[in-house]
Amino acid sequence: MAEFELIAQHFSFGHKPNTVVLDKGDDCALIKPNPSSSNLLAITTDSLVAGTHFLADISPKALASRALNTNLSDLAAMGATPKWYSLALTLPKDIANNQTWLSEFSQQLAALSEEYGCYLIGGDTTSGPLAVTISIIGEVEHSQAMLRENAQVGDLVCVTGSLGDAAGGLQFVLDKDLTAVKPVYKQHLLARFNHPTPRVAFGLAVKQYVCCAIDISDGLVADLSHIVKASQVSAEIELSQLPVSDALVGQFGQTQACQYAATGGDDYELCFTVNPQHLMDINKIAEQTGIAVTVVGRITESDQSNHSVTTLLNGQVQQLTQLGYQHFA
Amino acid sequence: MAEFELIAQHFSFGHKPNTVVLDKGDDCALIKPNPSSSNLLAITTDSLVAGTHFLADISPKALASRALNTNLSDLAAMGATPKWYSLALTLPKDIANNQTWLSEFSQQLAALSEEYGCYLIGGDTTSGPLAVTISIIGEVEHSQAMLRENAQVGDLVCVTGSLGDAAGGLQFVLDKDLTAVKPVYKQHLLARFNHPTPRVAFGLAVKQYVCCAIDISDGLVADLSHIVKASQVSAEIELSQLPVSDALVGQFGQTQACQYAATGGDDYELCFTVNPQHLMDINKIAEQTGIAVTVVGRITESDQSNHSVTTLLNGQVQQLTQLGYQHFA
Repeated sequence: MAEFELIAQHFSFGHKPNTVVLDKGDDCALIKPNPSSSNLLAITTDSLVAGTHFLADISPKALASRALNTNLSDLAAMGATPKWYSLALTLPKDIANNQTWLSEFSQQLAALSEEYGCYLIGGDTTSGPLAVTISIIGEVEHSQAMLRENAQVGDLVCVTGSLGDAAGGLQFVLDKDLTAVKPVYKQHLLARFNHPTPRVAFGLAVKQYVCCAIDISDGLVADLSHIVKASQVSAEIELSQLPVSDALVGQFGQTQACQYAATGGDDYELCFTVNPQHLMDINKIAEQTGIAVTVVGRITESDQSNHSVTTLLNGQVQQLTQLGYQHFA
Repeated sequence: MAEFELIAQHFSFGHKPNTVVLDKGDDCALIKPNPSSSNLLAITTDSLVAGTHFLADISPKALASRALNTNLSDLAAMGATPKWYSLALTLPKDIANNQTWLSEFSQQLAALSEEYGCYLIGGDTTSGPLAVTISIIGEVEHSQAMLRENAQVGDLVCVTGSLGDAAGGLQFVLDKDLTAVKPVYKQHLLARFNHPTPRVAFGLAVKQYVCCAIDISDGLVADLSHIVKASQVSAEIELSQLPVSDALVGQFGQTQACQYAATGGDDYELCFTVNPQHLMDINKIAEQTGIAVTVVGRITESDQSNHSVTTLLNGQVQQLTQLGYQHFA
């Protein structure tokens, strides 16, 4: 959403206090309430709005999953432990009076809160068009926070899980008549879209080796672009190496699957960069946590003015027609 | 909004961690990230949604004021020092492309951030129907937090400033043809509605004497009812003592002014209870800060099952037809 880069310009004001270690422009802000402690609080806020991030007929369970998990994913990308969150819920009258809807929404939120060890401390409920804003707070040691600005030339670019599944699932959300090649493909892709799995445990496990990470919400190329700009480097990725699921390839074919994997949003996998000397440690953690890790590229030098992500296909430069992801609107 | 009491039932789940001192049901949640420090973080979240809390033609300056000040007011009611906040902004396309609107909104936010010493750490911008959600964090010493549950039988019930002005201002917002008795009345009442003044400095100054406070967002009677329920007491207030402005009385007459003062929302004054022995200290602080304080009632005993607010007019019980405030919707 290019218009929102413009908006971001309007919200840089005031003198940054000493207590603010990192503010706008990473997955989370980092604050240091206690000057004598090296423990930081990582804070992030995400809004999901009907018609922009989801369709109004979304199931309450999927809405709860997506609302909390996108926030948890931001904490995962910082290597922060989830702790407390607040919930601002705007509900149309029919939903506010629908006990079944509310009960399913809250049960899913309760299940995820238990799974990820975070606690709902409060919030606000309002009448209006369906929207959910969650603000979550986690904890991270100052020296172990994974920042976008920490990529180093020579680092490997890695991703967790498989990419593009959520973009595939979105096609089924948008087109109710879309035929599934196999029912199990549709089921897998929709689950990946509706119930993203934040890589919290993985982020906590790798942060001792990894200094730079981001979660993939806008698409690999778009999100890796944030890393190279913040770190003042460039990157290249090899499209043939992108991890894609059997379901995605089976449903959409190799070419479209690759496009979704490079540019599709809402996967909420992690993209991180790591010094090659730690690759074995990372692979060990991948095995321990059961989360696949794939090396998809590397960080390269860039001249000062051009921090870019180059996409290669079998070693040859390959332009992607669509960079990033624009949600519904 | 009675429907939302029902909703609140759905969001009490999970085991409250030791780090959570106070959660849902007060102006702020209180958390204790550092077990060895007596400093707590006070956290609150408020959403303003077009059509519910304001009309879509609201000025960007008024929207910024109301969005931040309602949150600051929650911190004021806890006696907390404002520190950091995040902003989730949902904007229709025409506003997202309106540089003047964005600039006026952000300038007002910047001015208030400086005035109250808080800092915007991040947030989210989204396309959709106009809405603002702010989540703010303040700091307060554990022993000095002013809680709804701390009212004691025999305490005086006090309020800051004048009451009912915002309800009066709202009439001018809702009815563009409403004739002002004097232009200055309309100007005063609209300013009180559009630019509420959170009593942050006052809250910080009195918290050494005051254990129980709430900010008046839903109307004095409704908000005092929250106090008596949380403290398991009752209260009586004397309607003839409610502080009303010349503008409110001049515009609407004594009877309507009294009704607005007792039940009108959006004033964002503080209602607090205090042991009579500290009244002189409170009056001294009122003088120092330039914030009027009025004793409007007292906390009384209640039998276990009925924690209620009784309204008196010149000592006689007087029923109010309208208890609380229902916003626009």
